[in-house]
Amino acid sequence: METKEIKKQIEPYLKIIPLGGLGEVGRNMMLVEYKDSILVIDMGFRMPEEDMPGIDYIIPNIAYLTKNKKYKNIVGVLFTHGHYDHIGAVPYIMARIGNPPIYASPLTRGIILKRQEELPTQPKLKITEVKDGSKIDLGPFKVEFFKQTHTIPDNLGIFIETPVGNVVHTSDFKFDKYPVNETPTDFARLKKIGERGITLLMSDSTGAEQEGHSLSEKEINKNLGEIFKKTKGRIIVATFSSLINRLQQIITLSEKHGRKVAIVGHSMKTNIWLTKELGLLKAKKGTIIKKVSDVNNYKDDEVTIMCTGAQGEETAGLMKIVLKEHPTISIKPGDTMVFSSSVIPGNERAVQSLKDDLLRQNAIIYHYGMMDIHAGGHAKQDELKEMINTMKPRFFMPVHGQYSMLVANARLAEEECNIAKSDIIVADNGNIINLQKNKAYIDKKEVPANYVMVDGLGIGDVGEIVLRDRQVLAEDGIFVVIAIVNKKTGKVQTSPDIISRGFVYLKESQELLKETRKRVVGAIEEATGSGRIVNWTYMKDKVRDDIGEFLFKKTERRPMVLPVIIEV
Amino acid sequence: METKEIKKQIEPYLKIIPLGGLGEVGRNMMLVEYKDSILVIDMGFRMPEEDMPGIDYIIPNIAYLTKNKKYKNIVGVLFTHGHYDHIGAVPYIMARIGNPPIYASPLTRGIILKRQEELPTQPKLKITEVKDGSKIDLGPFKVEFFKQTHTIPDNLGIFIETPVGNVVHTSDFKFDKYPVNETPTDFARLKKIGERGITLLMSDSTGAEQEGHSLSEKEINKNLGEIFKKTKGRIIVATFSSLINRLQQIITLSEKHGRKVAIVGHSMKTNIWLTKELGLLKAKKGTIIKKVSDVNNYKDDEVTIMCTGAQGEETAGLMKIVLKEHPTISIKPGDTMVFSSSVIPGNERAVQSLKDDLLRQNAIIYHYGMMDIHAGGHAKQDELKEMINTMKPRFFMPVHGQYSMLVANARLAEEECNIAKSDIIVADNGNIINLQKNKAYIDKKEVPANYVMVDGLGIGDVGEIVLRDRQVLAEDGIFVVIAIVNKKTGKVQTSPDIISRGFVYLKESQELLKETRKRVVGAIEEATGSGRIVNWTYMKDKVRDDIGEFLFKKTERRPMVLPVIIEV
Repeated sequence: METKEIKKQIEPYLKIIPLGGLGEVGRNMMLVEYKDSILVIDMGFRMPEEDMPGIDYIIPNIAYLTKNKKYKNIVGVLFTHGHYDHIGAVPYIMARIGNPPIYASPLTRGIILKRQEELPTQPKLKITEVKDGSKIDLGPFKVEFFKQTHTIPDNLGIFIETPVGNVVHTSDFKFDKYPVNETPTDFARLKKIGERGITLLMSDSTGAEQEGHSLSEKEINKNLGEIFKKTKGRIIVATFSSLINRLQQIITLSEKHGRKVAIVGHSMKTNIWLTKELGLLKAKKGTIIKKVSDVNNYKDDEVTIMCTGAQGEETAGLMKIVLKEHPTISIKPGDTMVFSSSVIPGNERAVQSLKDDLLRQNAIIYHYGMMDIHAGGHAKQDELKEMINTMKPRFFMPVHGQYSMLVANARLAEEECNIAKSDIIVADNGNIINLQKNKAYIDKKEVPANYVMVDGLGIGDVGEIVLRDRQVLAEDGIFVVIAIVNKKTGKVQTSPDIISRGFVYLKESQELLKETRKRVVGAIEEATGSGRIVNWTYMKDKVRDDIGEFLFKKTERRPMVLPVIIEV
Repeated sequence: METKEIKKQIEPYLKIIPLGGLGEVGRNMMLVEYKDSILVIDMGFRMPEEDMPGIDYIIPNIAYLTKNKKYKNIVGVLFTHGHYDHIGAVPYIMARIGNPPIYASPLTRGIILKRQEELPTQPKLKITEVKDGSKIDLGPFKVEFFKQTHTIPDNLGIFIETPVGNVVHTSDFKFDKYPVNETPTDFARLKKIGERGITLLMSDSTGAEQEGHSLSEKEINKNLGEIFKKTKGRIIVATFSSLINRLQQIITLSEKHGRKVAIVGHSMKTNIWLTKELGLLKAKKGTIIKKVSDVNNYKDDEVTIMCTGAQGEETAGLMKIVLKEHPTISIKPGDTMVFSSSVIPGNERAVQSLKDDLLRQNAIIYHYGMMDIHAGGHAKQDELKEMINTMKPRFFMPVHGQYSMLVANARLAEEECNIAKSDIIVADNGNIINLQKNKAYIDKKEVPANYVMVDGLGIGDVGEIVLRDRQVLAEDGIFVVIAIVNKKTGKVQTSPDIISRGFVYLKESQELLKETRKRVVGAIEEATGSGRIVNWTYMKDKVRDDIGEFLFKKTERRPMVLPVIIEV
């Protein structure tokens, strides 16, 4: 008996290790580990924060996998769907973890391969296509994919049979009985999955703070249809290029109302090309205007312009049109502008400024604050409860979303679905969740999960120091002082050079510069003049401090002061 | 007859010149000019945009006033109320326009003088106190002030009798029959003003995109009261320090529920002290905890902490508490955190991160998305229509707000209040609105109204160039190359020095630096080695371009390259 008891105690745990996507929106990546086998779910990026100048993306930290080449244990990388917050980090990570086999739906595969083209010298990926119902054995894991409704076709939830029980990962999802360009949510299939007995449910929390049920795309389609019906002039629709189902709606509505569709924006063109190739997006022959400049050959009521830039992004199609920088399209008075999109937190001011500029050019604007012409892709509270009640999990773990969203989803489970608080796991990135049939807890140990910042071709080399320097440079600029010192006499030769950027307008600050030069000479010659051996490091520090203080006193600005002292 | 006709035609116009506050929220300043007399209304600042690193504020451009000392025509500066978007630019402007006489209510005066203390060497201001009903003759203008409800006491609308007719400026306002800490809106008085005949109404547009009526503070007070009633632990309320009426509510509710109030945040302390001094805020003796550290001497249910930082500002009281950087207060599990504030556009991410950190420390959160515990200070559509219908103006001009808000207010006037479109003036900063009894139009000429950026002590010297440099430095850092060239031989002496910040982590980039040095030497010696006379400017440009290209190729980053070439 006692031996058995001990054996039971050392029964291995299933480890769930989120490397990104918890306590944040984006950068989704999760490990499922059992003994010597690791499953990876998704590999996304997120956008940088405001105080990270120059950073392109933030990607998951894979130190846990690269340390001691632990990645050799990876039995497969599973992707839920083709949005960049789930696949965007692929080009930065795959080569560094030994290019393990990938399992993805056709559209997800297509988007991953397109993205791969943007970065040179990538290894050839080994992708196996999967779809609703596909089953694969990967080491100790029996994986099965199931269709989930979202805003992009080919979105798959994941069911994993593991030695400690069944695990369900919902992917991003919402329930929609009347979607556009998709079959409706298959509730019967979800129910059957739940009936197999679920030990752990990991469920999308992005919409958990929002009451009610997400809007059906049928509703959106109806409202967009009304705009199409009453509009006499051109219609310009801005939306996310990744919102494939919405793009389909605009195309279909345009066809119905006798309009051709011009597409402005590289990513939107790519996605339409890709989904058309795969038969996932339908447009009649001739609907899509091939050359955007041909727009001007049609009457105003025969044209829809579909473009990127609904977030006020500086480089996107819509911004170029509004700022009159687009080669062939500009705003005409009476154009009807439809924002079929929400505003991503952080973009409010850019979108406001875009709207103002459109109004100054006498466009008519519709946006989601005025009528329901956009729905997000995430389940709200009613749907989240339904998911929990369908799966009836032993343990519940909210995933995908800010910490407040995870907490909101946890509260739904506890207060409205009768899951005991002790059976709900609200975790953070880097936590290790240990799971057995009847036991789940967060380990005291953690794995590295801090930000890895990508700028240009480099990965991870924009660390804390480089970022802090950028922040200082941005605040008050740089002030470089170059002095040539005669080795023998210790005197400064000629007047020191000053190069400064981002501090003050130099031409108008001659007096300040003159006085600064004098102080540089003073500080240096004080150090060299005493006849002692000169401590160059000390002298540089002294010049830096003296000049920094002096400039602050005069301007209340603190540029980065860099002294260069050259002995000749 | 004909002479008379001509005389009539050259009848002078009243000129309305907005220098700020139109097409933006904040920076309110407006001129009312008639012949040789100028009235100034407000002198506010606004916060910088995201792409203006290091900038403290944006203030109105006063070039129109300083050119040819036109400011000598100013007959008075009128202030509507004490919020910084209406008074914040005073210390940067008053001395430069000859320190003209100011007219302001007691609280507005107090706040202006407090603000003045923060900047050294200001001239002593000449302020005449005014209140509801005060009348002053200023040159051709007969000015009368009238009380308007807002979120701060002592807020005054302005009625101006001018040679071309009566002008009304609403100030920021909302209608509230049951305000807290104020008398209700005096509709009878507003009606009487309207009955005098209004040629031009300038009305606050900040809330013009929002349907319905602003919430009464009575409602807010009731909901806050419910939180106070059911809360057992400490209550921490974060709100704007300028929301004096809300501060009063929290103090009164705390007294009612047996709680003492500790105040965290410099600006909140100052405002409470000031309004108490003026008798505009009431607290029983002993309610305010004088030393914040004494908070810990009370039981949890005997304490309210009122703090700044509801916007997630890095340096504010709440942030210090949450990040455990406050000397005496930190979050305890079970603390109830009340955000009695909205989120200012642009601060969404900071507020989200603050909320997440509070939840991680097990605080309970209430915010305005969950229940009505905050109301803004601006009239919504129903109130705006009521204002127009009360004043029945000949001409209508929306002021204060983003362009989309001005357009929304104009639409209310046209579609719901029967003002002809041609009698509605939607203007931008810098426009000159020419007004006669029966004629109003925007002049073709404009006055300068572009941003004046304040950083530290300087004004206006952070122009386009300095700002652009800061943006470039922030993106990819700086790369300074220092080479010493022998005048006689044209050879580079020793290896060039490289100083770089914010570009790559230098210690890990030795290979890159080595190759860069080689290229610098190559570029220079190619220019000096030919035996021709050396064009130093050309050489520097060449080094800059070569090295810039090389670094981009290697890293896809574009640091600012500064070559320093020294001849010895």
